[in-house]
Amino acid sequence: MESNNHSSRRKFIQQTAMAGAGLMLANTLPVFSQTNQSAAASNNIKSKGYAGKDEHGKLTAWNFERRPVGDNDILIEIKYSGICHSDIHTIKGHWGKQQYPQVPGHEIAGIVTAVGKNVKKFKVGDKAGVGCMVNSCMQCESCKKGQEHHCETTGNVGTYGAPEASSPTGITQGGYSSNMVVNEHFAIKIPKDIELQYAAPLLCAGITTYSPMMQYDVKKGDKVGVVGIGGLGHMAIKIAVSKGAEVYAFTTSPSKVNDIEGFGAKEVIVVDAADKLIPWKGKLDYMVSTVLYAYEMSPYIDCVKPYGYYTQVGMPVNGALAINNFNMIFNRVNFNGSLIGGIPETQVVMDYCAKNKIYPQIQVIKATEINDAWEKVVNKEARYRYVIDAATFS
Amino acid sequence: MESNNHSSRRKFIQQTAMAGAGLMLANTLPVFSQTNQSAAASNNIKSKGYAGKDEHGKLTAWNFERRPVGDNDILIEIKYSGICHSDIHTIKGHWGKQQYPQVPGHEIAGIVTAVGKNVKKFKVGDKAGVGCMVNSCMQCESCKKGQEHHCETTGNVGTYGAPEASSPTGITQGGYSSNMVVNEHFAIKIPKDIELQYAAPLLCAGITTYSPMMQYDVKKGDKVGVVGIGGLGHMAIKIAVSKGAEVYAFTTSPSKVNDIEGFGAKEVIVVDAADKLIPWKGKLDYMVSTVLYAYEMSPYIDCVKPYGYYTQVGMPVNGALAINNFNMIFNRVNFNGSLIGGIPETQVVMDYCAKNKIYPQIQVIKATEINDAWEKVVNKEARYRYVIDAATFS
Ligand SMILES: [Zn+2]
Ligand SMILES: [Zn+2]
Ligand SMILES: [Zn+2]
Ligand SMILES: [Zn+2]
Repeated sequence: MESNNHSSRRKFIQQTAMAGAGLMLANTLPVFSQTNQSAAASNNIKSKGYAGKDEHGKLTAWNFERRPVGDNDILIEIKYSGICHSDIHTIKGHWGKQQYPQVPGHEIAGIVTAVGKNVKKFKVGDKAGVGCMVNSCMQCESCKKGQEHHCETTGNVGTYGAPEASSPTGITQGGYSSNMVVNEHFAIKIPKDIELQYAAPLLCAGITTYSPMMQYDVKKGDKVGVVGIGGLGHMAIKIAVSKGAEVYAFTTSPSKVNDIEGFGAKEVIVVDAADKLIPWKGKLDYMVSTVLYAYEMSPYIDCVKPYGYYTQVGMPVNGALAINNFNMIFNRVNFNGSLIGGIPETQVVMDYCAKNKIYPQIQVIKATEINDAWEKVVNKEARYRYVIDAATFS
Repeated sequence: MESNNHSSRRKFIQQTAMAGAGLMLANTLPVFSQTNQSAAASNNIKSKGYAGKDEHGKLTAWNFERRPVGDNDILIEIKYSGICHSDIHTIKGHWGKQQYPQVPGHEIAGIVTAVGKNVKKFKVGDKAGVGCMVNSCMQCESCKKGQEHHCETTGNVGTYGAPEASSPTGITQGGYSSNMVVNEHFAIKIPKDIELQYAAPLLCAGITTYSPMMQYDVKKGDKVGVVGIGGLGHMAIKIAVSKGAEVYAFTTSPSKVNDIEGFGAKEVIVVDAADKLIPWKGKLDYMVSTVLYAYEMSPYIDCVKPYGYYTQVGMPVNGALAINNFNMIFNRVNFNGSLIGGIPETQVVMDYCAKNKIYPQIQVIKATEINDAWEKVVNKEARYRYVIDAATFS
């Protein structure tokens, strides 16, 4: 065992050294020249970001290091980073205990500034994005068929907060930061014709709503319901509309009605009381809910036609939801959950939205405005996605 | 309005009189000769049964009247009546407030002793059964396609406890009784070659498990999980086995293991701790749960393969179930509920079980043993269906 450990440690150092040797550096960003410590340490990438320090969820500026750029890695200079409600839930520990400091952010768009020697998908100067995961085993059936988010061995490695041996901080650190090192497989090519600030939200809000809607074959003429019109919900509307569906938007915010009509919804239902849902009973072909808190699901599920599907993508505190089987036996609806999408499908939604000019409605903010923005997200005041200008991290 | 009311009241009396005229009486049961009151009242059918008088759910003997046998009705002399856990939930008010006295029972098998003049499906002397519903609108799309349980206008009229204008007690009264009047459409033909005590439980336990398994196409070689092995669960096993499926039975009762193997299950999993379910994660093609109380569903649902289906037929108190969306996004299972089945499919399961000798495992009891039996059902001591010998009601 001892000798094995030594040997694999040696192997690791060799690989790291080779990784350094294989790098093609971008001129614009002096990555390796900054430090002069041991070989491995000097290759670490310095990053500036905003991190949560505890469950109170107040973010503060934090300088940290990322792993050296390996043979299969790219280094991305982050330009824009979207704020997802999931960031808030995670940092506040609503989905489980966390390690801190932790940099959230999984809607990341930037420019490639360095590539490892094996990298084929990117070259320096390309636009690149990173979504909700940065690794998986790449060997199992799910990984092989492009469902890395459902990796059967290690599970997918989340973009932030996941234990990661190669990370100097012990966990993955997300996109509220100036740069990122990621295996090229988990980076998405961003087409030239979409601006980075619009591309970022597609990497979570886009794929998370696109994937189930394609799974359930949302198409021309379908009546699609979207519940909860925030960052995810407004993308669900735009995507479904682009597929020719008639979209019915369910919101609790009367102040969003005009915007939602602008996104192309055929009808906006302001659900200020459960009886507002009664006229929709059994009327819709498919529904997707982005609601991130426990809510009374039954009257919404009832809106789907018998044998249709209702997908819950919003993840409440601890995932806990109540379902009523009296409703389920009569509505005959299939309830399911859906988790982002695989890397190939994330590329598809990126290309699709770029080509069809399906852009999120965003507000660009500075790093110092993150905490305010989080509060507004929680209070349903976001219109509809905050995107951090990453230049403001440094 | 006044005159309309009068006219429809007159019409009702005329129809009732015609119904009496159209009856072909059975020799064995003197239905009309017993009373000598007004024309309508004298046609009422006297019945002896056991009724719940309040939410405590203690049943006592009760004499009551049923409506006269109408043109489209048959009169059934009940021979056997199954005890379903639903009877207990209903009478105890677990699913909503009830009117009392109320006679439960929706697994009813007997002999036709009278038929209305329009009746074509039955003649006196035929075996007939009644399950969980006794009426519906018969006009809507669902009714027309044989999904009377999903009637879109009136809803289905349950066999007991449902408001019914024609019933002298104001509500429908169920099968824990000596006879029953029912529209022929809602009566099931019981083949000659199945004994009535075995036919009775097919009318709820049989159809309730058969219908979803056919909906999800349970077939040769499929791995089917059945959760909760009582009256419904043991029928689910037998039916799935008869279709060639490999059946995995999940029970909390170690004392049932031998029986369950006898029903044909390939493997019995005694779930005395949640970790017993871990090895089954993602292994089964389809699962049906008959569990009638709130239970931690997630580890069971996790046993289904991605994109498979999990059907909850057991109905907990108030229908309330907890679901966890962390599990649902990773297991990708479709959760749904299922309610009995339509009349045509109930006939199918009756004929199928008769032909293939798929019989419930029953214990025949006397009326005076009903309260004891209910306690045993609640305590999971039933093995596996109590069937009341209706001769003991008189
Ligand atoms: Zn997100
Ligand atoms: Zn994998
Ligand atoms: Zn039943
Ligand atoms: Zn109907």
